[in-house]
Amino acid sequence: MAVGAETWPHMLEIAGFRLGTASAGIKKPGRRDLVLMEIAAGSSVAGVFTRNAFCAAPVLLAKEHLAQGAPAYLVVNTGNANAGTGEQGMRDARAVCEAVARQQGVEPWQVLPFSTGVIGEKLPVEKLVAALPAAGQALSEGGWDDAGWGIMTTDTRPKGSVREINWQGETIRISGIAKGSGMIMPNMATMLAFVATDAKVDGEALQGLLGRATDRSFNRVTVDGDTSTNDACMLVATGRSGVEVVADGGALWQQFEEAVSAVLLELSHAIVRDGEGANKFVTVEVSEARSSAEALQVAYTVAHSPLVKTALFASDPNWGRILAAVGRAGLENLDVNALQIFLGDLCIVENGGRADSYTEEQGQRVMNEEEILIRICLKRGSVAEQVWTTDLSEAYVRINADYRS
Amino acid sequence: MAVGAETWPHMLEIAGFRLGTASAGIKKPGRRDLVLMEIAAGSSVAGVFTRNAFCAAPVLLAKEHLAQGAPAYLVVNTGNANAGTGEQGMRDARAVCEAVARQQGVEPWQVLPFSTGVIGEKLPVEKLVAALPAAGQALSEGGWDDAGWGIMTTDTRPKGSVREINWQGETIRISGIAKGSGMIMPNMATMLAFVATDAKVDGEALQGLLGRATDRSFNRVTVDGDTSTNDACMLVATGRSGVEVVADGGALWQQFEEAVSAVLLELSHAIVRDGEGANKFVTVEVSEARSSAEALQVAYTVAHSPLVKTALFASDPNWGRILAAVGRAGLENLDVNALQIFLGDLCIVENGGRADSYTEEQGQRVMNEEEILIRICLKRGSVAEQVWTTDLSEAYVRINADYRS
Repeated sequence: MAVGAETWPHMLEIAGFRLGTASAGIKKPGRRDLVLMEIAAGSSVAGVFTRNAFCAAPVLLAKEHLAQGAPAYLVVNTGNANAGTGEQGMRDARAVCEAVARQQGVEPWQVLPFSTGVIGEKLPVEKLVAALPAAGQALSEGGWDDAGWGIMTTDTRPKGSVREINWQGETIRISGIAKGSGMIMPNMATMLAFVATDAKVDGEALQGLLGRATDRSFNRVTVDGDTSTNDACMLVATGRSGVEVVADGGALWQQFEEAVSAVLLELSHAIVRDGEGANKFVTVEVSEARSSAEALQVAYTVAHSPLVKTALFASDPNWGRILAAVGRAGLENLDVNALQIFLGDLCIVENGGRADSYTEEQGQRVMNEEEILIRICLKRGSVAEQVWTTDLSEAYVRINADYRS
Repeated sequence: MAVGAETWPHMLEIAGFRLGTASAGIKKPGRRDLVLMEIAAGSSVAGVFTRNAFCAAPVLLAKEHLAQGAPAYLVVNTGNANAGTGEQGMRDARAVCEAVARQQGVEPWQVLPFSTGVIGEKLPVEKLVAALPAAGQALSEGGWDDAGWGIMTTDTRPKGSVREINWQGETIRISGIAKGSGMIMPNMATMLAFVATDAKVDGEALQGLLGRATDRSFNRVTVDGDTSTNDACMLVATGRSGVEVVADGGALWQQFEEAVSAVLLELSHAIVRDGEGANKFVTVEVSEARSSAEALQVAYTVAHSPLVKTALFASDPNWGRILAAVGRAGLENLDVNALQIFLGDLCIVENGGRADSYTEEQGQRVMNEEEILIRICLKRGSVAEQVWTTDLSEAYVRINADYRS
């Protein structure tokens, strides 16, 4: 049901970053569900986490540990989110970090835990701990492929993205993997992303870059910029390429920020394409807005409208539903006679109604595509924003109604 | 697919208010799709209309005409919304009003038009006008039943509600009908309601009452208080009972406001119960909030969550999804350890996670019901609000994906 062909890139090894995957049998026996990542000493590590008030225990603990210094290990399990588990959940997350620390010879605060899966069930700590030695044994800079599969839950395909920067005869590499597949409202279908580079980057600059890049990628495929109880995106810079990237706004920094942003954007789009029951990859672009806020307000109203989404599922050029969604987005003094709405390059709405030049046949042609661009030109400012979403299909309902049974 | 048994009340005739229904063949031949309502001279008339920036032509014209004085006729067609039709749409709406005015011997501004149906297609004025004589012939105080059917679109059943007030030996009657069936996002599935009473009420007081009553009924089954391009709710007071109701806050006024509010609430709930693909009637109640705004913010976040709605469809007591929706509602400094969440009387969340006393069997018992109450007690204030919604089923997607084909 995913949109577009599966594309798993040739992952680039990142010196100083090793990954090991094992099967802990958390939910299904034999399934790869435990991933350990090792970060070489001297690396910078940045992270962004869910803003959900019901933070899962691993998120609370990861933030607590990250505040104490750069971590040496990330430990990820699928099959159980350890969310909504109260004090017991915190004890369980701590127990996992302590077991990793013991095994690898570091302090517990140097381990960051990540969990994804069912909410509200006790984390099977014993199973996890029992599989840690295998994950430790498997640690390798070539472990990206196994890890890409190992962090999946309802995903139908692994998601990876790479970039390489050549700078004055030297090379910087960036590799990233992500998981997530609940598209219509990804707030709950946990999104996890782990990106590593061998560039040498100051920790504060790395955190700033990650904030900006997630805001334009993962936070643009999400309702209201919200996230699930477990969402996290980590960016590691090992420095082992020997190339230092300084946040001076110069050419190298720009190239680096663009490359990291491109990896995050590609990963976030891969999540949309693998959306539950998704048949379409939809870009909603709002331009000539007065502010970023109002552009996003209109874009999200269109992107979240079940009526627009079901029309997309049916490949029905039902421009009236798009028009009505724009109209109810709540913009003050919106001049409906000035704005224009396009399906791809095709103008569907102008002068307050259906464009004179529009024909149903033209609309049908655009809607039959798998990738659809809805463009809303507000004609009242100069700001543009994009968000990405999918259609709403019967399969989405079926998947989410069956998830626990 | 509607929730609960069909209940069409014995409609009460309202002296001074006549209804006539006819078949104009707008979308399907033979279907009742044109309703004319006649308001006796001296009546007060109040109205609330959609806040969608893309107001349909009939809404613009109804507001324009209502501003000129009390109307004598309301004319309603189904099958075509005359929305997104630009200048042509305004000309068509005016043509219908003029035809009614000519036939009934009043001024065009004394006629208010209402349309519901497909967006963006030209109103077939000739068909409407050709059926006006039949609608005029049919005008009768007993015309409520035909009108209840005549205003339906995708509704599976007509929706009516009545109340009677006995006051010092005299009687006041209230009768109302409504249409609307797009539940998950009713913003686009037009809701129309026409309520009449034989009480004598000052126009300004009537408008104030209607505003308050719709805010707690139709606006509580709607996303963000938003409405479709065509929504309207009209309240007519003919005064023919001879009982004057003065907005003095006294016992009679209170009884009257309660009765009118009850009619509107019953009609709005009937729309939820007839929601497209609806299997559940869900009340989301948020209590002990700091303000009405934050109570509604939480209530709407839960009521709109596709993941909560698909769990409701599956009768799955997936309390984790409710917890996560509350957590992402965006409340500042929300103490997740203090709040409680209930399914009916069953506590499902407390102390930041699943309630210790909760069992899956108990949750399943509540979720198997057709009517479900989700109660969120925020424990940080004294304000409570309720909104009403349905589950999200595969049938909803099917209905809305097929609507135009």
